[in-house]
Amino acid sequence: MTQSEIREEKESSRAHLLRAAAELMTERRSIEVSLSDIAQRAQLNSALVKYYFGNKDGLLLTLMQEVLSAGVEQLNGLLAMDLPILDKIRIHVNAITATYFRYPFINRLIHVNMAKPDAVTKVAKSITRPLADAHRSLLEDGVAQGVLKPVDPMMFHLILMGACDQLFFGQNVLRHAFDVEEIDEELRRNYTRTLLDILLHGIVVTND
Amino acid sequence: MTQSEIREEKESSRAHLLRAAAELMTERRSIEVSLSDIAQRAQLNSALVKYYFGNKDGLLLTLMQEVLSAGVEQLNGLLAMDLPILDKIRIHVNAITATYFRYPFINRLIHVNMAKPDAVTKVAKSITRPLADAHRSLLEDGVAQGVLKPVDPMMFHLILMGACDQLFFGQNVLRHAFDVEEIDEELRRNYTRTLLDILLHGIVVTND
Repeated sequence: MTQSEIREEKESSRAHLLRAAAELMTERRSIEVSLSDIAQRAQLNSALVKYYFGNKDGLLLTLMQEVLSAGVEQLNGLLAMDLPILDKIRIHVNAITATYFRYPFINRLIHVNMAKPDAVTKVAKSITRPLADAHRSLLEDGVAQGVLKPVDPMMFHLILMGACDQLFFGQNVLRHAFDVEEIDEELRRNYTRTLLDILLHGIVVTND
Repeated sequence: MTQSEIREEKESSRAHLLRAAAELMTERRSIEVSLSDIAQRAQLNSALVKYYFGNKDGLLLTLMQEVLSAGVEQLNGLLAMDLPILDKIRIHVNAITATYFRYPFINRLIHVNMAKPDAVTKVAKSITRPLADAHRSLLEDGVAQGVLKPVDPMMFHLILMGACDQLFFGQNVLRHAFDVEEIDEELRRNYTRTLLDILLHGIVVTND
C-alpha cells in the first residue's frame, strides 16, 4: 500500500467506528453501547477504538464533536452568504433543532460530556466558543443593518441553545407531563417556528 | 411524648437531613456527598435516611422536589394576585433564576434525576405538570386581556425553562468559552433582564 492508501484506510476505520456507534445509539435510543458492539457493527477489532480514541468515552466525545463541528462550519458558511439577516437566523435555528432530531443521541451525549471536566474544556474550545463567536457576528451584522436590537451575545447564545436543548432533554418528561410520546418532524418544526416567533418578535402584542 | 410531639420530632429529623444535604452540596459545589456526611451534619443516625427516603437517591429526589414545589406554589400564589400580567411574568422568571442561584446544586440534581426513569415520572407529575399548567393559565390570561399573542403553552414552557437552565448548566463551559469564573448576582440579574426582553419583545427592531 502507498502512504496515501494507508492514510485512507486509517481514516475509513476511524469513520466506520464513529458511524457504527452513531447507528447503534440511534437504533437503541440509548448511549449505553458497548465497545464490542461498536467494533462488531464496524467489522473491526475493538483494539482500534483504543488506538484512535483512547477509550469509549473518547470515541463518544469525538463523535459529539464531529456532529457539532459540522454545524459550526455550516453556520460560518451561512454567515458568509448574501441573505437577509432574519433568514440567516431562521435557517440557523432550524439547523440546530434538525441536528438534535437527526442525531437522537446527541442531546444525551452533550449532557453526559458536560458533566466531565476534561470533556467540557474540549467542548468549550472546539464547539461553544466558535458557535458563540458566530452568534456574536450574526447579532452585530443585524445591529449594523438596523434590523436587530443590541443584545448581549453570550446571553443570546445561552438562551437560544437552552431553548433548543429543552425539547430534546428529558423526553420522558414530555411523555409524562404532556402526553407527547415521541418528537416527530412536525413537532420539531412547530417548536422551531414558535421559538423563532418568540426570539424575533416576543410574546407581547404590539400595536403597529 | 404525645403523638403530636412524636410527629414534630419526625418532621424535624426529616427536615434536618434535607437541610444538611443542601448545606453540604452548596459548600462543596458538588452533589457528591455521602450518606454518612449528611447524617453527621444533621447529627442523626444515617439509618434515618433509609427510614424517611429509602436511600440517598430518594433523599436527593425529595430535596429537589421540595425546592421546586415551593416555586410552583409561589407561582400559583402570584397568579392569584391582582397585578398586570407582564409584572407577573417578570416576577416569575426572576424567581426561577433566583431559585437556581440560591440553590447551586438544584440544576445538577435536575439533570441527574432527568436521567433516571423512576425519578423522571415523579418529577413530571409533581413539578413539570403543575408548573406547565400555571404557565398555560398565565398565557391564557394574557391573551384574554389582549396583552399577549397566543403561544403554544407547552412550547412556551420548554423555551422558558431551557433558557433559564442553560446559564447554570455546564458552568465549566462558561469558564472556558466566555471567561466567566462564577455566576454572581449581577450576572443572574442581567441574564434575567435580557431573557425577559427577548421573551416579551423579541430581538427584531420594531418601528413604533
